[in-house]
Amino acid sequence: MIKRYNYNLLYNTGSIIKNIEEAKDKIIFDYRYDNNKNIFKYEMNKNTIIYGLGENVRGINKRGWVYTSFNTDDPDIHETRSSLYASHNFIIIIDENKKFGAFFDTPSEITFDLGYQDIDCISVETENGLNVYIIEDDSIDGIIKEFREIIGESYIPPFWAFGFCQSRWGYKTKEDVLDIVKNYEINNLPLDSICLDIDCLDNYKDFTFNSSFDNKKDFITELKNKNIRLVPIVDAAIKKDGSYYIYNEMLKNKYYCMDKDSNPYFVGVWPGDSLLPDYLNNNASKWFGSKYKELLDLGIEGFWNDMNEPALFYSRNHVDEVFKYIGEQVGKNFEVEDYFKNKGMVIGLQNNLNYYKELYHNIDGKLIRHYDIHNLYGYKMAEAASLYFKEYNKNKRYLLYSRSSHIGSHRYSGIWTGDNASWWNHILLNLKMLPSLNMCGYMYIGADSAGFGQNTTEDLAIRWAELSIFTPLFRNHSAKGTRNQEYYNFKNIDIFRNILSIRYMILPYLYSEFIKAVKTNSLLYKPLFMEFSNDERTREIEDEIIFGESILLAPIYVQNASGRYVYLPDDYLEVRVKNAKEFITRPLTKGDHYIKMNLDEVVFFIRKGYAIPIYKEFAKNVYDINYDNLSWIKNNDNLYEYTLVDKDDNYRTYKIK
Amino acid sequence: MIKRYNYNLLYNTGSIIKNIEEAKDKIIFDYRYDNNKNIFKYEMNKNTIIYGLGENVRGINKRGWVYTSFNTDDPDIHETRSSLYASHNFIIIIDENKKFGAFFDTPSEITFDLGYQDIDCISVETENGLNVYIIEDDSIDGIIKEFREIIGESYIPPFWAFGFCQSRWGYKTKEDVLDIVKNYEINNLPLDSICLDIDCLDNYKDFTFNSSFDNKKDFITELKNKNIRLVPIVDAAIKKDGSYYIYNEMLKNKYYCMDKDSNPYFVGVWPGDSLLPDYLNNNASKWFGSKYKELLDLGIEGFWNDMNEPALFYSRNHVDEVFKYIGEQVGKNFEVEDYFKNKGMVIGLQNNLNYYKELYHNIDGKLIRHYDIHNLYGYKMAEAASLYFKEYNKNKRYLLYSRSSHIGSHRYSGIWTGDNASWWNHILLNLKMLPSLNMCGYMYIGADSAGFGQNTTEDLAIRWAELSIFTPLFRNHSAKGTRNQEYYNFKNIDIFRNILSIRYMILPYLYSEFIKAVKTNSLLYKPLFMEFSNDERTREIEDEIIFGESILLAPIYVQNASGRYVYLPDDYLEVRVKNAKEFITRPLTKGDHYIKMNLDEVVFFIRKGYAIPIYKEFAKNVYDINYDNLSWIKNNDNLYEYTLVDKDDNYRTYKIK
Repeated sequence: MIKRYNYNLLYNTGSIIKNIEEAKDKIIFDYRYDNNKNIFKYEMNKNTIIYGLGENVRGINKRGWVYTSFNTDDPDIHETRSSLYASHNFIIIIDENKKFGAFFDTPSEITFDLGYQDIDCISVETENGLNVYIIEDDSIDGIIKEFREIIGESYIPPFWAFGFCQSRWGYKTKEDVLDIVKNYEINNLPLDSICLDIDCLDNYKDFTFNSSFDNKKDFITELKNKNIRLVPIVDAAIKKDGSYYIYNEMLKNKYYCMDKDSNPYFVGVWPGDSLLPDYLNNNASKWFGSKYKELLDLGIEGFWNDMNEPALFYSRNHVDEVFKYIGEQVGKNFEVEDYFKNKGMVIGLQNNLNYYKELYHNIDGKLIRHYDIHNLYGYKMAEAASLYFKEYNKNKRYLLYSRSSHIGSHRYSGIWTGDNASWWNHILLNLKMLPSLNMCGYMYIGADSAGFGQNTTEDLAIRWAELSIFTPLFRNHSAKGTRNQEYYNFKNIDIFRNILSIRYMILPYLYSEFIKAVKTNSLLYKPLFMEFSNDERTREIEDEIIFGESILLAPIYVQNASGRYVYLPDDYLEVRVKNAKEFITRPLTKGDHYIKMNLDEVVFFIRKGYAIPIYKEFAKNVYDINYDNLSWIKNNDNLYEYTLVDKDDNYRTYKIK
Repeated sequence: MIKRYNYNLLYNTGSIIKNIEEAKDKIIFDYRYDNNKNIFKYEMNKNTIIYGLGENVRGINKRGWVYTSFNTDDPDIHETRSSLYASHNFIIIIDENKKFGAFFDTPSEITFDLGYQDIDCISVETENGLNVYIIEDDSIDGIIKEFREIIGESYIPPFWAFGFCQSRWGYKTKEDVLDIVKNYEINNLPLDSICLDIDCLDNYKDFTFNSSFDNKKDFITELKNKNIRLVPIVDAAIKKDGSYYIYNEMLKNKYYCMDKDSNPYFVGVWPGDSLLPDYLNNNASKWFGSKYKELLDLGIEGFWNDMNEPALFYSRNHVDEVFKYIGEQVGKNFEVEDYFKNKGMVIGLQNNLNYYKELYHNIDGKLIRHYDIHNLYGYKMAEAASLYFKEYNKNKRYLLYSRSSHIGSHRYSGIWTGDNASWWNHILLNLKMLPSLNMCGYMYIGADSAGFGQNTTEDLAIRWAELSIFTPLFRNHSAKGTRNQEYYNFKNIDIFRNILSIRYMILPYLYSEFIKAVKTNSLLYKPLFMEFSNDERTREIEDEIIFGESILLAPIYVQNASGRYVYLPDDYLEVRVKNAKEFITRPLTKGDHYIKMNLDEVVFFIRKGYAIPIYKEFAKNVYDINYDNLSWIKNNDNLYEYTLVDKDDNYRTYKIK
């Protein structure tokens, strides 16, 4: 059952697509308006669990920290961060005798103190008006299903987007792209797509290619004939450049975010001085969406939207102000506090809150301060593209994933979980976000495998790939200046070849379970406790998840470890895979196990009574997978029925004995 | 057996106190001089383990990363950092059929690539000349013992330094101190010392108190009568202030680090413009050491040396240069690359390598570039103090611990492991550094409990305290601007009271094992594999350690976890402690266990055949412990003999049945 409570709703986010009558009773939280804030409190008991909050730090159980939804570009993702790139304001509270979901529907900053200030108390606080949706159901699945129904069906990408993608910030020329293709080919590594990052643009201008990309259409076609697709980046801001027609159109039509006097508000991002398109303005949004045509017409079928929190390196006005002040400090015998103030002013130029407060949107002729609807910016950018794709070809699925997001954008795009690092604990963070993101509607998801920032190690790249083969988006992506981490740059290319083959081996199951999870509003990735709520041992498990209907994943995320503890909440079949063609199995009973997992082995577990479809050949890309030649790994004694959704979304029912 | 190999030794670090003849044979590494570097390579096999490197990131097994010894003040301690506050250039390599220790004796930057560039290869590289000591022995204990013998006996602090210490950057006045004392008293929490951080100084001037501390001597005495000691900070640099006699003495005698023309080289640190004393100059060192007299005469018995990497916020010359340049950028329509260059110049003011290359020491009349002996600075600062303490009162032990260190300083002081964060994985890092530090001679060690940087949570503070009660230095310390984390500021003060009581309960064992480990050049904390080398399962264990002769520690370091896996390499007795007076025991057999550990329980394990002495009362400070009234927790069937070193360092032998 869903109830809506209205607290002077400021702005309709569009996150909810169903009309829910306003409830007249008292909300389950202890609500008060105090100190200019809407405050929702809830007393926890010792065993209260809190799920949700999508893209965030810390555990699957979010208890014990304070999280703030305020989309922020900061690649230093550690456990005391409060805001990442997304706002996913849905939580599920599970007490011994009560469970309910709560969606805080607001475009503004909102803080979830889940036992930080007071270890036993939840306090959700926000300055602006909002709607709160309370969802009660007997089961956690039921709560999630009802929530997912009111936020609308999740985005589904094209089939090829489930193949492996190579990416790196720093690829610049057509030759760079050809070099990657060549290296993947000569090393017999599969490849379905290559991302083009900002250096491939002409001077950071959206929807362009730099001059190295001659004969673009032919080049794109040529690669597509090899089943390799190029996926260009689209950054949120548009370069200030009088010779750039998109800039000129935006300027002419006032499709930009503006200052309070409706003048263009110049910000600094990758293209230098730039303007932010006003994605919340309907006409601007339609106009921007239509710009994808340039690339669609060339045969491009996938895009990634970046810098759309929006990330701002500076604003034109503030940078001059600060630099002037700094220049005036020369020769002053300042106290150390002044020195830090000076330094802080320069560092504080990036993503300064003042910019967000000085920026305005023109919504139906009314100026709305950006700060108040900040969290919708990336969401509305994705919507702009997605709605245009439908217009361009309503029968085709396009790949789109975004860095910034807010519940609602899950209908239009996938997400990658932002600028992570080559840290072992980010493998675990990757795992822990999967169920949380699913709860919030995000199904096409993945983390930059092997890590974006910092230098990776070969074993980290291997171990991370051993998880990424099980996530819908599997992209090896890294930052400029870090170690080259294309798999062919490492010593044990054979290990990577084997692991990648397992991606395609498992893909029939992955794709099928993905589609079914989208269509039934259920989870592709589940915390163990959701499936085995009567098993107290599963309550705290944070390093294993259930993947689809029958697989349990428990990857290695510790360096130099060749084994780990695994708790099995039922009898399972251990599947120890070397590559798509070679694996061995062993039945394991419910309980604790210490399982060896060497660097060159992928180990997963299939629940008793189930079987999974696999493709038992080395594939070069997703189109190599022959759906008429699938095999099965069986852990069933009795007849077992599996409904497979094939690559064309046909439902095929198999009876497995 | 120890062999010394000389590669154009640049400078005698003093780390080694025994004269080892130069070996004539070929070193065990594959040595070459290439590209102006001494390079030492070693091929690993699949199971090679590398121990050592003292204060560092990552595992007890250091394999799989590249570490650079170059003492650096940067509080962002994550797994892709390469340099922390210390240089501990001793490693132990353990192959299946070979094991040896290697000490790279150099005051300069040196890099240990332990399987980073090539996953199977060790490569140690340094530009300057050095001595390499190779230690071979049948056992790992033997290698460590021989190494510890040639670097000299480790520092021993006074007995009271094993009590609990409260600290925070931000305590400023006498009233702040009294407030802490009062809160510890009214909450019945034990307390042995309080650290005074930089705000307690008069304008950041070393060896001073600000004006709030009137009647200093009386105040110090008054607190000491309660068995609470004040432990002031001593920062490396001296404020430029013509009214400060220490500055004037330094200037007059040229006891400062200078530029290449022997002029004072002004740097910016907490006191603003400052000079660095030349601790490598004998006269300057003696002069600086004697300044501790000011505080010793007041009754102070403990100090902590800080900022001695040395940390430098700016140099006077560079800051003006950079600020001038920034001022000139106003109004320029720069490309984003230029913006980042500008910003980078400001950020790059801190700890800029150029300063270290422009600074010189005057050693026996010869100018030596600081950069080449950089890693000795903190070590020599500790030596200066320590040698003076001996002069001041040769029969007394003083507390001294330092942030920066280099092997050699272990003879003069303890260390804390620098500016960590309130991160759960820093509890584990704390655990993992303990054996590595012991290998390098550092015995009086501890991490800032509950975390220095970032905001802590109550459960993190509890869990961290549950480890810190077992480390020689147990200090709750935090950064200005972070959440107040004195234990009385949390909700469950009773839990903290109980945990603190366990510190004093275990102290007779801790102190006794500490002294014996120092005197026998052995480890107080051991990786399990060192004790149980025939048990392959212990090879990879990174979250349990052996503490003293019989205890196994396996703390919780994951939020919301009320249990964890523990591998016991022998039969052990589980000891589940609520407080000094209440505990229950349960025998456990060798093997894997999932052990419940609620937030309010400290669980440790005593090996079969052993017993440990405890003090079974609540103590207010270390002097409350009555050594004539000790109890025992026994896990022995047969007669067991324990040699206890009591608080006066008397050896008492107990026969336990």
